Amino acid sequence: MSHNTFGHLFRVTTWGESHGPALGCVVDGCPPGIGLTEADIQPWLDRRRPGQGKFVTQRQEPDAVRILSGVFQDERTDGQVTTGTPISLMIENTDQRSKDYSEIAQAFRPGHADYPYFAKYGVRDYRGGGRSSARETAARVAAGAIARKVIAGVTIRGAVVQIGPHAVDPERIDFDVTGDNPFWAPDPAIVPVWEEHLEKVRKAGSSTGAVVAVEASGVPAGWGAPLYGKLDAELAAALMSINAAKGVEIGAGFASAALSGEENADEMRMGNDGPVFLSNKAGGVLGGISTGQAVTARVAFKPTSSILTPRRTLNEAGEEVELRTKGRHDPCVGIRAVPVVEAMVACVLADAFLRHRAQTGGGAFDPGADRG
Amino acid sequence: MSHNTFGHLFRVTTWGESHGPALGCVVDGCPPGIGLTEADIQPWLDRRRPGQGKFVTQRQEPDAVRILSGVFQDERTDGQVTTGTPISLMIENTDQRSKDYSEIAQAFRPGHADYPYFAKYGVRDYRGGGRSSARETAARVAAGAIARKVIAGVTIRGAVVQIGPHAVDPERIDFDVTGDNPFWAPDPAIVPVWEEHLEKVRKAGSSTGAVVAVEASGVPAGWGAPLYGKLDAELAAALMSINAAKGVEIGAGFASAALSGEENADEMRMGNDGPVFLSNKAGGVLGGISTGQAVTARVAFKPTSSILTPRRTLNEAGEEVELRTKGRHDPCVGIRAVPVVEAMVACVLADAFLRHRAQTGGGAFDPGADRG
Amino acid sequence: MSHNTFGHLFRVTTWGESHGPALGCVVDGCPPGIGLTEADIQPWLDRRRPGQGKFVTQRQEPDAVRILSGVFQDERTDGQVTTGTPISLMIENTDQRSKDYSEIAQAFRPGHADYPYFAKYGVRDYRGGGRSSARETAARVAAGAIARKVIAGVTIRGAVVQIGPHAVDPERIDFDVTGDNPFWAPDPAIVPVWEEHLEKVRKAGSSTGAVVAVEASGVPAGWGAPLYGKLDAELAAALMSINAAKGVEIGAGFASAALSGEENADEMRMGNDGPVFLSNKAGGVLGGISTGQAVTARVAFKPTSSILTPRRTLNEAGEEVELRTKGRHDPCVGIRAVPVVEAMVACVLADAFLRHRAQTGGGAFDPGADRG
Amino acid sequence: MSHNTFGHLFRVTTWGESHGPALGCVVDGCPPGIGLTEADIQPWLDRRRPGQGKFVTQRQEPDAVRILSGVFQDERTDGQVTTGTPISLMIENTDQRSKDYSEIAQAFRPGHADYPYFAKYGVRDYRGGGRSSARETAARVAAGAIARKVIAGVTIRGAVVQIGPHAVDPERIDFDVTGDNPFWAPDPAIVPVWEEHLEKVRKAGSSTGAVVAVEASGVPAGWGAPLYGKLDAELAAALMSINAAKGVEIGAGFASAALSGEENADEMRMGNDGPVFLSNKAGGVLGGISTGQAVTARVAFKPTSSILTPRRTLNEAGEEVELRTKGRHDPCVGIRAVPVVEAMVACVLADAFLRHRAQTGGGAFDPGADRG
Repeated sequence: MSHNTFGHLFRVTTWGESHGPALGCVVDGCPPGIGLTEADIQPWLDRRRPGQGKFVTQRQEPDAVRILSGVFQDERTDGQVTTGTPISLMIENTDQRSKDYSEIAQAFRPGHADYPYFAKYGVRDYRGGGRSSARETAARVAAGAIARKVIAGVTIRGAVVQIGPHAVDPERIDFDVTGDNPFWAPDPAIVPVWEEHLEKVRKAGSSTGAVVAVEASGVPAGWGAPLYGKLDAELAAALMSINAAKGVEIGAGFASAALSGEENADEMRMGNDGPVFLSNKAGGVLGGISTGQAVTARVAFKPTSSILTPRRTLNEAGEEVELRTKGRHDPCVGIRAVPVVEAMVACVLADAFLRHRAQTGGGAFDPGADRG
Repeated sequence: MSHNTFGHLFRVTTWGESHGPALGCVVDGCPPGIGLTEADIQPWLDRRRPGQGKFVTQRQEPDAVRILSGVFQDERTDGQVTTGTPISLMIENTDQRSKDYSEIAQAFRPGHADYPYFAKYGVRDYRGGGRSSARETAARVAAGAIARKVIAGVTIRGAVVQIGPHAVDPERIDFDVTGDNPFWAPDPAIVPVWEEHLEKVRKAGSSTGAVVAVEASGVPAGWGAPLYGKLDAELAAALMSINAAKGVEIGAGFASAALSGEENADEMRMGNDGPVFLSNKAGGVLGGISTGQAVTARVAFKPTSSILTPRRTLNEAGEEVELRTKGRHDPCVGIRAVPVVEAMVACVLADAFLRHRAQTGGGAFDPGADRG
Repeated sequence: MSHNTFGHLFRVTTWGESHGPALGCVVDGCPPGIGLTEADIQPWLDRRRPGQGKFVTQRQEPDAVRILSGVFQDERTDGQVTTGTPISLMIENTDQRSKDYSEIAQAFRPGHADYPYFAKYGVRDYRGGGRSSARETAARVAAGAIARKVIAGVTIRGAVVQIGPHAVDPERIDFDVTGDNPFWAPDPAIVPVWEEHLEKVRKAGSSTGAVVAVEASGVPAGWGAPLYGKLDAELAAALMSINAAKGVEIGAGFASAALSGEENADEMRMGNDGPVFLSNKAGGVLGGISTGQAVTARVAFKPTSSILTPRRTLNEAGEEVELRTKGRHDPCVGIRAVPVVEAMVACVLADAFLRHRAQTGGGAFDPGADRG
Repeated sequence: MSHNTFGHLFRVTTWGESHGPALGCVVDGCPPGIGLTEADIQPWLDRRRPGQGKFVTQRQEPDAVRILSGVFQDERTDGQVTTGTPISLMIENTDQRSKDYSEIAQAFRPGHADYPYFAKYGVRDYRGGGRSSARETAARVAAGAIARKVIAGVTIRGAVVQIGPHAVDPERIDFDVTGDNPFWAPDPAIVPVWEEHLEKVRKAGSSTGAVVAVEASGVPAGWGAPLYGKLDAELAAALMSINAAKGVEIGAGFASAALSGEENADEMRMGNDGPVFLSNKAGGVLGGISTGQAVTARVAFKPTSSILTPRRTLNEAGEEVELRTKGRHDPCVGIRAVPVVEAMVACVLADAFLRHRAQTGGGAFDPGADRG
């Protein structure tokens, strides 16, 4: 059972609401002896942080992470390392702007989790979305930073590949250039197109959806636990659990429905360092187990539901009302989801590595190659 | 940890290989007092059974299910009911055609799980795909039949909505007509198109992918356990765990990336029986919790990897070989996946219902309304 | 998998070391709508707090608990309630006396977890026992305070019934008087005996073991999930997980080995309010399910391992050394275990209640009778 | 959640009732490549089988186990091995004597699970105890046989050390002689005493309790996952889940309550092959982690509740009745529990080994040393 925990052996339990005093997570099952300080986590949080451009929400928070347990700085040696005990991370909420919630306190914002939370629990924290706020993803990103250290030989990179109707040319995707623009775009050519689209959306008080792609290279063959801990099934759950996600595909994904068997089944040859595949329609996963190719996935994000246009809805009393959502909101939540997608993939892979090691001894993969 | 178990409170553990003596599952956590005999399960297995047309594999097995535990026929009363103890189901494998496996015993079939299973475990049951065979889905369908009884007020219906490049017109989808044709097509108009396409594929010794849609109506608002037991995340994992699945989307799914906030956020009004939504882009799930609308999802299936065209691959010795896969194979595995998709949705919903009841008491939903 | 989590539906994940900045826990799965503020938790922590007498450690900490998430004070109503989201509790460590750890930093204290932690993890936080310190039990007591509110109709009371060789007369046990003395003794007659024994132990720089009894009344028939979630098995695990616990028994426990079937099997009659048992050798549990009688258990605690007498041991280099453990230590850890035993029983029962409600709907038990 | 599953990574799900067609289990998470045929399991079942003496029930069943999945006999090699997929084991119930259950169908046998099962589920399989029958332990013993192969370097041996009031002299315990008598007695001197006691009990139509001791040698230091997967806590749960168990203790157990710190804390010296302890009060576990010493535990079993003496009880209608339980019953269930206790310890240790390997890589322990 895992309402607020994900992972089986690399287990992350997150907690916290948008407008509570803090949020955080407990990472349990992390191997001991891995170098870990706040400085290993903070940069990933900084990448996720809002307030970095005019197309993301203006909420300004340092999102400074503190490690409260699970590490030890032995006075006799250099460097702080994980001890194998649970790692508690906390991020204080510093920018809980005092504002008037009277309108959304009553009404259910269309497209938001307001109504089902109220229907389920009979009570809801309406301040900033409460538990359903995207602020919770800061805890995921922090946990992901630790996961990356557990599988230090694996490289995980995300990119936005579609905003609104404007998709990147798949042939031109280059993960090395995503840091050069505010959209995590893997092709500079798309940047002006998206800028224009987002400017239009922003001016209209509207919002737009997006698609994020992610690729993990360096994953050895053998990770994943069929049949119900399949690597692709775990990825699907992890990615679909991100706020606003509505679709997940692995490898060729939905496009594979239109393919023939010849086009789809990746052929194999023997390379200098072992088996190689001549294509990667499978997205690095067959039968739920990694093949040694790059693991690739894509996630669809719906448009931000908070828009300035008045929308018809109900209030808690069941009365019909109109509501327009004022305040600080990203016109495109998909952009800020990139570091979160990466973090979830890191956590799933760290977990799969530990599970693989449990059942089989783990083979030749050396996760500690680059550990700090 | 759940290599071969899915569900948290309605737990299904499946076992069995394609060419072993039998396969089956253990359903744990089922509520007591539900009428259950083999006759409640067998019809769903019959729907899934191969050998029902020229476009599905010719393997002929009765797939007769036996209930080995968990039910009790009290001599003093009428009717056999569940007792709350684990329900063990077994289906014997009767058509394990003695054949020559020498070729695939050596070589990894491209697009199959052969290579990663061998890389992971160092040993693999190469007969008919072993554990990775779609035969295992019989156990899922059997478990799904029990799940349907747990949430008897919910109706779950699947359909094939795309085969190869030929998609059904979304406006014409009618789940009531899927039983009238061998493709689970929700629109008679598409049937001749698919027949022609599949005939061409079959003659070419090739295969084709497909997309399956599923809809669950009667789900009350409140099911789903945020943040890591979100109803849509659980559905994503369950559906992605089906053989050959490569993508899952909820509601508008990938199409939502191109929408504006106005188009995407479903407005609400008050109807005679409570809140109603004016559209269902969300697919019945917001914030990971059901809204009371129909829960809708779509699953992409890749083409069958077993094709007659010779393909380049490796054998266990690492030698480069060519392989063509002879034998009984569906040209389009997506068609037979429909009852499996429905079963997985049923299991996820039964689990969500029990989880909801645990945490909240369950509200007004009466799952036993129609229990046999 | 649950290295640092206990419970299935009422899930408690604890974190923190003796000499880190803080410790705490995340309680997940708590039902919504339960009144909860720090004032509901603090009194239970105060009962557990050391520094309350000369026979318990002189470490002085306020152990002030903070609720960081999972509750909501609706401005529109009175009272703060749980929201169904994870409840994060934190207690800061304020009395981390700067001291010289150089001796135990090297050597493994006999009877302590020092050696196996080092053997397992290759690194250990030697300050005050690190993660294996009894300080962690503060988090358990805090979680137990919430569990008590979930099953408000149940009363859980513990007592010390043996210290060293001196046991309370079972016929004289009265849980109502445990608060009248510093030993949680259920019989005033034993108090001077224990005082004399403990004074002797303290002067000798030695320590002594103890037995704690606990009783939960108000548990309805039907809680417990056979066969591997049996109520008594869950209690055994929970109680054995407490620091220094070496034995657990339910009802007549080890004494039942010497009984005859006639003596052991509790007979039943019909009382005014339903079935009554004429004895309670079973300790309120048959077949792993509660019978409606009081649930009774006893836990054996070994003597504190930290003693002033020099003991032979090894250091991390494998050298043979002698060690005497100076510092603040309870001569009898069993005394302070009473609130922890109660808390663990509360958590197990809250979990069993939620599990029972999930599978069966929960019957007539109204846990909310007295909720704040 | 694990109503009928135990273990985290070495997971055993059992199913079946006393008088159903069969019973069995699914073992999930077993490492691949371990030699396994029915011949590896059957001898352990034969040890547990009733009908082997006048002091155990006369029910005669071959208890022949079948492996239905999870192993593969590669035609190209010698020997059948595990494949890493779930291992399904089935034992048919062949001796379901047709008998008259009309009396116990109505009445709750005192000391049995009849009443709480009925109170919980509203329905119960009254034939032979249904799910609560000790017959289910056959599945545990079968699973334990596989667990023993996973940790082939570990030796697990049980013995009866007390029957009724007659305990074995602890100084005389020799696990090598338990096979020489029908009581698993570790000291021949006690055999005539027990024979006389049991003959008296049998003639009186009564029954008697017992204590079973178990010892696992060869467990390396480091197994166990603090704080809530402590090795001793896992053992406590596993052993307390056995039918009729009422108490569990580790090492000195309840006796440690009367010890001083000097007596209790096992001192350490350096031996030729590494650290050695000068005593084993801890029972091989400190801080929840194995120390490298033998892991020792004791389990108390209550007397069989089925006795010929009439006892007062209720029937399902709530009427007061008298009941004497006729039929085949062991006067002392503790005797037959020995192989079950061993099996549970084997399963817990196999699980702890896999968990340890997951988090730490596993160290130098070579579990496969003697694998068949």
